Amino acid sequence: MKKRRLIFLTNDDGYAAKGFAAAIELVREFGDVVAVAPATPQSGRSQAITMYEPIFLELKHSEPGLEVYSFSGTPVDCVKFAFDHLLADRKVDLVVSGINHGSNSAINVLYSGTMGAAIEGSFYGCPAVGLSPTDHNPDADFEAAKEYARTIISSVLESPDDSGRPLCLNVNVPNIEREQIRGVRVCRQCRGIWREEFYRHEDPRGKPYFWLTGSYTNYEPEATDTDEWALQNGYVAVVPVQIDMTSYPQMSYLERILK
Amino acid sequence: MKKRRLIFLTNDDGYAAKGFAAAIELVREFGDVVAVAPATPQSGRSQAITMYEPIFLELKHSEPGLEVYSFSGTPVDCVKFAFDHLLADRKVDLVVSGINHGSNSAINVLYSGTMGAAIEGSFYGCPAVGLSPTDHNPDADFEAAKEYARTIISSVLESPDDSGRPLCLNVNVPNIEREQIRGVRVCRQCRGIWREEFYRHEDPRGKPYFWLTGSYTNYEPEATDTDEWALQNGYVAVVPVQIDMTSYPQMSYLERILK
Repeated sequence: MKKRRLIFLTNDDGYAAKGFAAAIELVREFGDVVAVAPATPQSGRSQAITMYEPIFLELKHSEPGLEVYSFSGTPVDCVKFAFDHLLADRKVDLVVSGINHGSNSAINVLYSGTMGAAIEGSFYGCPAVGLSPTDHNPDADFEAAKEYARTIISSVLESPDDSGRPLCLNVNVPNIEREQIRGVRVCRQCRGIWREEFYRHEDPRGKPYFWLTGSYTNYEPEATDTDEWALQNGYVAVVPVQIDMTSYPQMSYLERILK
Repeated sequence: MKKRRLIFLTNDDGYAAKGFAAAIELVREFGDVVAVAPATPQSGRSQAITMYEPIFLELKHSEPGLEVYSFSGTPVDCVKFAFDHLLADRKVDLVVSGINHGSNSAINVLYSGTMGAAIEGSFYGCPAVGLSPTDHNPDADFEAAKEYARTIISSVLESPDDSGRPLCLNVNVPNIEREQIRGVRVCRQCRGIWREEFYRHEDPRGKPYFWLTGSYTNYEPEATDTDEWALQNGYVAVVPVQIDMTSYPQMSYLERILK
């Protein structure tokens, strides 16, 4: 009998999020599932790790083929804990992070806890997939995301990348009717940034506080090979992610001025 | 009279850290300084932003040419708040993040709050420099870091990069006697990862908890063009940082399997 696959699942919205339940349903189709997800919402946590606090683990659910834990740290803490402790003597075949409530396209890959976890997962020698529909609604419909994710995950498991590079996919799904989605596009990360506004209010004792909000500026709205373009034109955007942040073109400038 | 430069300063160890005081001394040599730093230590906070909590600002110190604020968010929150609110109508000439207590070379650039802030700062159109000696000691000696940072900052201000790319430097200084430092090397980010151990203990009420610790594995100890090699061989390592995380070499594989 063929050994069942082992899938590790996490997210950044916390174990109680609707998207996490949808992800559990989806990934169980591919094998046994161990899930370790944050105890509380951790959106925007990026690749953060918890260095100065203890982290508490709770088993939330257990049945044959499925274990769900909450962990009081960041998404990346969940991945590290799973691979370096909980599952240290087992072979994991796939990491899935999500299904997120909201887009992680373009520069959001830097801030996203969902993608932080997916990136971290890819360091452990199995493919990792972050799943994010662009719908932020807590009650979002995840059916289209599940359907496309199912195809993408199947393809990755059946035809592994043999390049020796860690495989990490940033998959974003447009918030439109499933029938209107035009297919999947492999894209590059769009250039652009967030500009923030800080709402200023006062607490009940008169102490001022600020609350971050903002809007995204696309630096290259004309380019048709970006994840932003794909989403705006009705495609599921798939960006392969790597972590070498060296700016090679700037090295000669620096060598010149730092001589 | 020439207008004085405006320097924005932040860090991830918090406004009260010794390295921050050293950074203030250093950057005042270059112009007027506005500093917004986390209220509490935020090491390992990566590019995290605070989405679900209010953030409190406190003016900690003010004198001609220097204002120091604490902000109860992450390092990136501090940068966003400075550029999009506090200094929104002023031109900032330079961002400095640090001086950190501990190395941010190699893959640490992903987890580092110091570098998260420097990267964020570079999005606002001025050069950004993250400064990290490899000494984690809270009472570390920052003299060598200051000396080399002074030279690097002067060079960047005097000979700006005209490529149109944001300039963000990850500067790491080896923990050796200043006289033994062999100079500055422009490097690429070394490949390698952290493997963690989770210390397990119990709280006073018997509830188990975990605490993250780990060790770094260098995937390419032989390569002589990496930041790790430079540090281990007595050089100050300077890596220019960019944020396109697209894995271009994997796009054709994905296009093939996702057809």
